[in-house]
Amino acid sequence: MADKKFDRGTTSEARENDPSLDRRALLRGAGLVGAAALLTACGGNSDQACAPVDGAPAILSKKRSLKMVTAWPKNFPGLGTGAERLARRIEALSDGRIGVKLYAAGELVGALGGFDAVAQGQADMYHAAEYYWQGKSPAFNFFAAVPMGMTGSEISAWVRFGGGQELWDELAAPFGVKAMLAGNSGVQMGGWFQKDINSVEDFQGLRIRMPGLGGEVMRRLGATPITKQGGEIFQALSQGNIDATEWVGPWNDLAFGFHTIVKNYYYPGIHEPGSALSLGLNKKLWDDLSAQDRAIIEASAAAENDIMLAEFNANNARALDTLIREHGVKLKRFSDEILKRLGELSTDVIAEVAATDDISRRIFESYAASRKDGMRWGEIGERAFAEARALSAAE
Amino acid sequence: MADKKFDRGTTSEARENDPSLDRRALLRGAGLVGAAALLTACGGNSDQACAPVDGAPAILSKKRSLKMVTAWPKNFPGLGTGAERLARRIEALSDGRIGVKLYAAGELVGALGGFDAVAQGQADMYHAAEYYWQGKSPAFNFFAAVPMGMTGSEISAWVRFGGGQELWDELAAPFGVKAMLAGNSGVQMGGWFQKDINSVEDFQGLRIRMPGLGGEVMRRLGATPITKQGGEIFQALSQGNIDATEWVGPWNDLAFGFHTIVKNYYYPGIHEPGSALSLGLNKKLWDDLSAQDRAIIEASAAAENDIMLAEFNANNARALDTLIREHGVKLKRFSDEILKRLGELSTDVIAEVAATDDISRRIFESYAASRKDGMRWGEIGERAFAEARALSAAE
Repeated sequence: MADKKFDRGTTSEARENDPSLDRRALLRGAGLVGAAALLTACGGNSDQACAPVDGAPAILSKKRSLKMVTAWPKNFPGLGTGAERLARRIEALSDGRIGVKLYAAGELVGALGGFDAVAQGQADMYHAAEYYWQGKSPAFNFFAAVPMGMTGSEISAWVRFGGGQELWDELAAPFGVKAMLAGNSGVQMGGWFQKDINSVEDFQGLRIRMPGLGGEVMRRLGATPITKQGGEIFQALSQGNIDATEWVGPWNDLAFGFHTIVKNYYYPGIHEPGSALSLGLNKKLWDDLSAQDRAIIEASAAAENDIMLAEFNANNARALDTLIREHGVKLKRFSDEILKRLGELSTDVIAEVAATDDISRRIFESYAASRKDGMRWGEIGERAFAEARALSAAE
Repeated sequence: MADKKFDRGTTSEARENDPSLDRRALLRGAGLVGAAALLTACGGNSDQACAPVDGAPAILSKKRSLKMVTAWPKNFPGLGTGAERLARRIEALSDGRIGVKLYAAGELVGALGGFDAVAQGQADMYHAAEYYWQGKSPAFNFFAAVPMGMTGSEISAWVRFGGGQELWDELAAPFGVKAMLAGNSGVQMGGWFQKDINSVEDFQGLRIRMPGLGGEVMRRLGATPITKQGGEIFQALSQGNIDATEWVGPWNDLAFGFHTIVKNYYYPGIHEPGSALSLGLNKKLWDDLSAQDRAIIEASAAAENDIMLAEFNANNARALDTLIREHGVKLKRFSDEILKRLGELSTDVIAEVAATDDISRRIFESYAASRKDGMRWGEIGERAFAEARALSAAE
């Protein structure tokens, strides 16, 4: 039908006087003018030129198709589905003008290849966790998770209102990347342990799957941290090649089935107290975006920051209940002695990260100050409330 | 310059072949076609007709100017500024196509008049807290805050992934309103008390400023809850007309200067453990919006949900520090006996809300189940982590 109208050879002038003309016809006619003509007018840093004229409707910004590489398997619950939801939101906000093609880990680049791919322009965006880039600078760890660090809501407070974003920008810009918060998987569990863990000595020689800085803390405790990709962990644990493993939290852990091998599920997890996920963009692309397109991407990422944490919390709560009630999993808390030692070792490890260079030191100092504020307010605020609520809770 | 080009009398055909034509010229020409012609094509529920055509750029949706009434004084820190930020974000995401005019409390309707104004079409949207509409149904309380209820992150988990939004829609639709989460001010403090509060008996006859269900809990404890608007509280406290008051949290409390009159600052606050703010829209307007415009409003609200809580947490933490270090405020914790009794009375009050009618009962049951899940996961997750972190924290 649309074609029929367009094929009549309607001129632009005729269209102006014919409000019955449908949208499809306009798209094929005037719409394409916009796509072609606006590239030069609205590109570059000329946001001013792209602002709407008073009284006139906004017109098309540049149509784009962006490649988003992710560090997650396709549709991996929480992380992969969150990246997908983020991509679809960017498309919805732009009414499809910005298309986002999502690549699972391994499809365009490997899980750890997102940063280089985006920096070099092979991809436009990544969805990942910044600690994957610690080979570029160990300071990236602070924007994802560090042992005994900040929780999800604390990280958001720091990045948004505590100077964190400015430091993040300073850290990432020389690499050609602009990154922002885009999800959080919440606090992790301590992990699945074949044997009871009663004292610091029980970690001696323990082969535990734990990557990154958390693994380094384990090493200093006397354990042997082992790095394994997600797909390899179950087999290693079932065959006795590792003695313990952490993964994510009850939701993802239940799906992996660790409870069918091991029943001891320890808490709290101190290695990742609130793992922030991030959306990183090629900085030149970011600098060239119109104010509207930046707003679309920033709002999409900020919305995902709230939605993903809500999803992890809702599903972790239910999965924890399922693990205990249906699968006989035994929840066990690390002793104060162990936790205190883990805290001391975490402080050491993070101090070494901070000592890397000037930017790492400044990021650490900002992070540490905000963490301290967050701890105080958390203790008096939500934590004191949660303890009060537990006093009268009917079970 | 733009006018010059346009005034040459360039035809649409010529423009297609002249990529140097700037955007302003197009706006005055073809752009206005879009604004006029698309009202019929994209209006109503015909979202399908508004979806972008493959390979073609998206074209203009309807230009709108929306009135947002708020329950807050103009630029009131956190709440008023958050509503303003939300309004500006909607404009930015639509590149100004959706204009949002914001009205502070009293400018168009009073602080508590937002719901009726939006339901009746006097305004298009409100930014407020749902407990202001408890006169319509007490069940609205659950979507803002109830004593000993859920924290900010727990409410987000319930509304988004625990069935809360569906019940909220069911509750609000008969009134002609569609509402969603759009901010959270975090956990509140217990309040400022002239005298020490050591036992349940100390609440007998105490004149305390506390509105809503929290005030009802106070009444059952033997206190006299008094409702006063923000502007009246300071004078009432300084003149001894009230013995105690709660307000919001350290950030807003510091600005009000209660510490210059009273030094006893009690915690935890149990009356509002995480006050959710909401964006409510006229339902007919909402139903008529294009998929893109709904996405713009939903993403703007969800982003604000993350950003406002981050702002409150960052500023509450700093303000608490200032109150203690610079103003000699004494932080005091309510005793377990008091907190336990407050919990029992809160349970009674909420049970009465739940008994109002069928929808209230179903909302309560969903809320209570999600709260229980959240408490369990919170205890094992973030709370256990926070306790562990405190063990080794250097002071």
